[in-house]
Amino acid sequence: MPLLVVGSVALDSVETPFGKADEVLGGSATFFSASACHLTPVQLVGVVGSDYPVDKLKALEAKGVDLSGLERAEGRSFRWRGRYRHDLNAAETLETHLGVFSNFSPKIPAQFRKAPFVFLGNIDPRLQLDVLTQVERPKLVACDTMNFWIESRRPDLVKLLERVDCITLNEGEARQLTDRYNLIRAAKWIMGHGPKLVIIKKGEHGAFMFTGDTVFFAPAYPLEEVFDPTGAGDAFAGGFMGYLARSGDLSQANLRRAVIYGSAMGSFAVEKFSIERLLEIDLKQLAARVADFRKLVAFEEEV
Amino acid sequence: MPLLVVGSVALDSVETPFGKADEVLGGSATFFSASACHLTPVQLVGVVGSDYPVDKLKALEAKGVDLSGLERAEGRSFRWRGRYRHDLNAAETLETHLGVFSNFSPKIPAQFRKAPFVFLGNIDPRLQLDVLTQVERPKLVACDTMNFWIESRRPDLVKLLERVDCITLNEGEARQLTDRYNLIRAAKWIMGHGPKLVIIKKGEHGAFMFTGDTVFFAPAYPLEEVFDPTGAGDAFAGGFMGYLARSGDLSQANLRRAVIYGSAMGSFAVEKFSIERLLEIDLKQLAARVADFRKLVAFEEEV
Repeated sequence: MPLLVVGSVALDSVETPFGKADEVLGGSATFFSASACHLTPVQLVGVVGSDYPVDKLKALEAKGVDLSGLERAEGRSFRWRGRYRHDLNAAETLETHLGVFSNFSPKIPAQFRKAPFVFLGNIDPRLQLDVLTQVERPKLVACDTMNFWIESRRPDLVKLLERVDCITLNEGEARQLTDRYNLIRAAKWIMGHGPKLVIIKKGEHGAFMFTGDTVFFAPAYPLEEVFDPTGAGDAFAGGFMGYLARSGDLSQANLRRAVIYGSAMGSFAVEKFSIERLLEIDLKQLAARVADFRKLVAFEEEV
Repeated sequence: MPLLVVGSVALDSVETPFGKADEVLGGSATFFSASACHLTPVQLVGVVGSDYPVDKLKALEAKGVDLSGLERAEGRSFRWRGRYRHDLNAAETLETHLGVFSNFSPKIPAQFRKAPFVFLGNIDPRLQLDVLTQVERPKLVACDTMNFWIESRRPDLVKLLERVDCITLNEGEARQLTDRYNLIRAAKWIMGHGPKLVIIKKGEHGAFMFTGDTVFFAPAYPLEEVFDPTGAGDAFAGGFMGYLARSGDLSQANLRRAVIYGSAMGSFAVEKFSIERLLEIDLKQLAARVADFRKLVAFEEEV
């Protein structure tokens, strides 16, 4: 089933202990799409400036990402420059230039409005709410957010929570949003405000999925080389939502598998700069990594 | 099969966001024994001062901990005073008084020397090495260590590595010991120096077990109330070693179950101060928590 994503399409410049990349494809919608497109058709809504190397997005189109909702506006594209030290869990932002993204007002093309699965990438909650007025009763809506919106747009964000089925956020954001340090309590607070599904991402320490009274945990895949963590969270979300959209099955068992697919996608994302590795992999490699996840956590009952 | 532990027996004074405890039973050998005794007979070697409330250790004896190797020396007992803030992963040490522990020289009683399973708690590596000269070809020897010994006794510690089968240490210690940030690389470095089994504990983020080419990961059990994290690592080690000693089975499948039993014991340890909770539980509760661990990580193959 089609999966609609609304989010940023940016140019990233990244420095890690292992190398540098300049003005490579980035942004939440980009990483999300590069991940989800392996599993389901993706419809992308975002904006780029007149300077964006749109040709480079053809690789995404070739993998089934419909870019007809990608607006091209006069002006400069969203640029982010960041650095990671050895603790790859924490990005240091050196520069952010919003460019045309600062006036972004998502317009969902008519042919995208019936998408049964919708992911609202990390943008202003007012815009996320606005997207929801443009779509027709999706089967599942998930959103992401960040510290900036939690601080500056809390009332809108709380309103958004009432309207989404699922939220993905990292542990710091969960604590900030809920004023609860304990993640179970944070998740309960969030579920009390709307979403039936809460996914708390802990970077290299894995991810929790909370649903009602159940908790599922997926570790991050232990890699000997984590090259560039940028986009891992969006790749996770893309794998998770892509897997759900592929089958349309929202059972607990399928949700759990979706989290593992998300974790697998996150682990691929960090192996190279930008969406490079995500574009290289195929379903066979993805299935092999999912099998590796099972080996990582499996233990047998006592005989 | 009997399990010998050599380590500290202390009095802890702890402050957490949830309460305070003064001069309660503590020390690595104490937590280890209170955990392992549910699974196998434990033989404890340690030292206390003339001021130690040895009567309180009767609860351990009643659960099968043989205290005939507990030396009583003239002087004051080992005391530790610490505090935890909301980030329960990091203890702030306020006071440490080694007392009689500073002259501790473990003497393994004749009846303990054939113990097939040996755990060398976190003491001076020279003493850990000395213990190994006193025991007779154990089936499995595991050791713990800490930053202080990594800094001050590195050559002895490296010598110890050659003589143990397993080491348990936390992620910070693993990085410090090996000068490798990546935990897979750190584990490989350690395995290259002796131990066939490396367990890297990540506190609330779970634990990795590395053996040859395999990696196993066990999450920490998500608790809504983490009351006092003191001793969780030793309780983990006690559950792990206790489970192995119970069956004597060192297969990969059994090692994995042992890690889960260790994680379960660690999760009980933090529910109350000192060894209180560890003494309360029974095998049924332990089995129930192990089952909860399965529910936490289990996902089914795709149909």
